[in-house]
Amino acid sequence: MSDLLKLKEELVLACKRAYRRGIQTGSGGNVSARVPDENLMIVKASGSSFEDSTADGFVITDFDGNLVEGDGKPTREALLHGYIYRICPHVGAVVHVHSPYAIGWASTRKALPRVTWHAKLKMCADIPTLDIPSPMVRIEDFPMVKEIFDESPELPAFLLADHGVVAVAKDPISAEHTAELVEETAQVAYLELIAKKFGL
Amino acid sequence: MSDLLKLKEELVLACKRAYRRGIQTGSGGNVSARVPDENLMIVKASGSSFEDSTADGFVITDFDGNLVEGDGKPTREALLHGYIYRICPHVGAVVHVHSPYAIGWASTRKALPRVTWHAKLKMCADIPTLDIPSPMVRIEDFPMVKEIFDESPELPAFLLADHGVVAVAKDPISAEHTAELVEETAQVAYLELIAKKFGL
Amino acid sequence: MSDLLKLKEELVLACKRAYRRGIQTGSGGNVSARVPDENLMIVKASGSSFEDSTADGFVITDFDGNLVEGDGKPTREALLHGYIYRICPHVGAVVHVHSPYAIGWASTRKALPRVTWHAKLKMCADIPTLDIPSPMVRIEDFPMVKEIFDESPELPAFLLADHGVVAVAKDPISAEHTAELVEETAQVAYLELIAKKFGL
Amino acid sequence: MSDLLKLKEELVLACKRAYRRGIQTGSGGNVSARVPDENLMIVKASGSSFEDSTADGFVITDFDGNLVEGDGKPTREALLHGYIYRICPHVGAVVHVHSPYAIGWASTRKALPRVTWHAKLKMCADIPTLDIPSPMVRIEDFPMVKEIFDESPELPAFLLADHGVVAVAKDPISAEHTAELVEETAQVAYLELIAKKFGL
Repeated sequence: MSDLLKLKEELVLACKRAYRRGIQTGSGGNVSARVPDENLMIVKASGSSFEDSTADGFVITDFDGNLVEGDGKPTREALLHGYIYRICPHVGAVVHVHSPYAIGWASTRKALPRVTWHAKLKMCADIPTLDIPSPMVRIEDFPMVKEIFDESPELPAFLLADHGVVAVAKDPISAEHTAELVEETAQVAYLELIAKKFGL
Repeated sequence: MSDLLKLKEELVLACKRAYRRGIQTGSGGNVSARVPDENLMIVKASGSSFEDSTADGFVITDFDGNLVEGDGKPTREALLHGYIYRICPHVGAVVHVHSPYAIGWASTRKALPRVTWHAKLKMCADIPTLDIPSPMVRIEDFPMVKEIFDESPELPAFLLADHGVVAVAKDPISAEHTAELVEETAQVAYLELIAKKFGL
Repeated sequence: MSDLLKLKEELVLACKRAYRRGIQTGSGGNVSARVPDENLMIVKASGSSFEDSTADGFVITDFDGNLVEGDGKPTREALLHGYIYRICPHVGAVVHVHSPYAIGWASTRKALPRVTWHAKLKMCADIPTLDIPSPMVRIEDFPMVKEIFDESPELPAFLLADHGVVAVAKDPISAEHTAELVEETAQVAYLELIAKKFGL
Repeated sequence: MSDLLKLKEELVLACKRAYRRGIQTGSGGNVSARVPDENLMIVKASGSSFEDSTADGFVITDFDGNLVEGDGKPTREALLHGYIYRICPHVGAVVHVHSPYAIGWASTRKALPRVTWHAKLKMCADIPTLDIPSPMVRIEDFPMVKEIFDESPELPAFLLADHGVVAVAKDPISAEHTAELVEETAQVAYLELIAKKFGL
C-alpha cells in the first residue's frame, strides 16, 4: 500500500508539473501508473484538473478500465492506458497532455522528427502521429497503437492528431519529462521551419 | 455568508491562476460569481490586479451593477456580467481575460474554430467573436450577446474583438479553465495556420 | 523612513514580478521610485538580478544619480530616471525592462499602436519608439525624451529601439503593470500581423 | 568544504531557475563549477532533472571527468566542461541548456548576432555556433572550442547546432543569467526577422 501511495504522489507531481510547465491547461490530459506485479493500474479520476489533483483523486482499475478500488470515474482514456500496459510490459506510467506545439505539428499527420541531438539521444525513433477521428482512442483504434509499438518496442511517445501527446516511461516523473521533451522538440521544429522559410 | 466567502476565495484563486498562467497581465480582466438563489452577484472591484486580488476586494451588486454590499467600485464590465446571469440561468461564474492568442484570432472577426478534439468535447460550438466598438460591452450591445446564447444556450465562451475572452461556467474555477482552453485552442489554431502556410 | 522601506519593498516586488512574468531575464532592467516631496529617488544598485533583488540592494540618489544614501553603484540608467522625475512631476516610479515582443516591435522604429481596447483605455497615446544609438540613454538624448512627454504629458511608456520598454506610473506596482501591458500589446500586434499576412 | 557546499547550492539554484524559466525541460542540460584553486570541478551527476537536482546530486571530478568524490556518474558533457576550465582560467562555472529559440537559431549554423544593446553591453562578441555532429562534444571537437576562445578570450557563450547553449561565467548564477540572455537575444532575433519579412 505504501508503494501505491508513493506512485500516486508521483502522479500528482507529474500533473502539477505539466500544468505549471504549460504543457496542459486547466482541464484535459490524464495520467496513470502500473500497479507493480499486478494487472492493475492507478488512473486519474475524471473531474479535477491537473493543478488541483490530489492522491485521493486517483482510483485503481483493471486494464479494461473497470473500477477496483477508490471513488470516482476513471478518465475516459483509461482503456488506452490499459492497452499500453498490456502490450508494453516495460511501461510503468503514461502521461497524456494537450501541449500546443505538439498538436500544431500533429495537424500535418506527419511524424515529429527528432530535430535535436538530445531528442535523438533520449528517443529511439521519430514520434509517430496517429490520425484517430475521435476525442478518445477507441478499441477499434488499438491496432494502430499496436503497430507503432511493434515497429519500435521502446517508443517513448506518440502524437494524436488534433489532440495531443501520449508519453510512456518506467515511472510518472520520467513520462512527464518525455512529454516536456516532445513539446520542446515540436517547438524547435517550428522555429527551424521559420528560419528556413524566412531564408535565414 | 460562508457560501459567499467560499465563492470569493474561488474567485481569488481564478484570478491568480489567470495571472500566473499568462492569460491576464497585471491590469485588466474581471471575474464574478452568481450569489446562489438571489438576483445578485459577487464582482471584483476595480483597482487591484488579478495577482493582488483578495476576498475583501469583491463586492456584491445587483444585475445592473448597483452596489449592495462591500466597499469599492464594481468593475466596469459588471453590466455585462449581470446581463449574462439574467439570460443564462445555468451560469454561475464569468471570467473575462485579455489572453493574447485569443485576441489575435478575434482581430479577424471570425469565430474561433474548435481545432482540437478536446475543444470539441468541452465546448458545444465554435467560439463566436462579437465586434463591439467600445472598451466595454454596453447596454446597446446586449442584443449581440443575447443572439449567440439564443443560438447556443450552452455556449461556454465568446470573444470580443480587439479585447479578449468571456468564459462562463457553473463556478469560477471551471470558468477560468474554459478561458485557458480557449487560449490553448487559439494558440493551436495559429500553429496549424503556420504549418499550413509554410507547406508542412 | 518607514515610507522609504515600503517603497523599496514595492520595488523588489516589481522586480520579482517582471522576472517571473518573463518580461525581464536574469540580468538587465532597472527600477526606481521618487522619494516623496524631495528631489531624490530610490534606485536599484547595479549587480543583482531582478529575481535576487532585496530592499537592501537599493540606494538613494539625487536626480543626477549622485549617491546620497546606501551602499552600491546606482544603475547606469539612473540619469534617465532622474530626468523623468524632473520633467514629469506626477511620475512616482519608473520600470525599465527588456521584454522581447516590445523590443521586436521597436526594431521597426515605429510607435507601438494600441491594438486592443484595454491598451486604449489605459494608455493615452500610442507608445513611441526612441532610436537612441547607445546602450543607455545619454544626456544628449534627453531632448527626445522631453519631446514625447511634451506631446503627451500623461504618456505611460516609451520604447527604446533594440533595447526595451520604459514604463512610468504613480508607484512601482503600477509601473510594472504598465510594462506588462506594453508587452501584451506588442505580442497581440505581432499576432494580428501574422493573421493578416497569412490571410486569415 | 563549506565553500564547496555553497557552490553546490548555487548550482542547484541555477538548475531550478533554468527549468522554471523555461530554458531547460525536464531532462537534459548540465551544469558545473570549478573547485577554487584546484584542477577539479563540481559536476552534476546524470539521472536527476534540473528541477529535481539537490546538492547531493553533484560529484567532484578532475578535468578529464574522472570521479574524485561523491556517488554518481558525472554528466556526459563533463569532458567539455573540464576542457573549458583548462583553457579559460577565468571561467568558474558552465551552464548548458537546450533553450528553444537558441537551438532554432543555431540550426542555421550562423553566429547569433547581438541584436540588442544589452546583449552588446554584456557579451563581447556575437555568439558563435559550433556544428558538432554528435549528441555530445567529443575530444576531437575540442579544437573548434579552442578556436572560438582564442578569438574571443572573454566569450560568454557559444551555441551547439541542433543542441543548445553553453554559457560560461565566474559563478553558476551568472552563467545561468547569461544562458537566459542568449535565449532572450535569440527570441528577439526571431521577432525582428518576422517584423522584417512581414514588411513592418
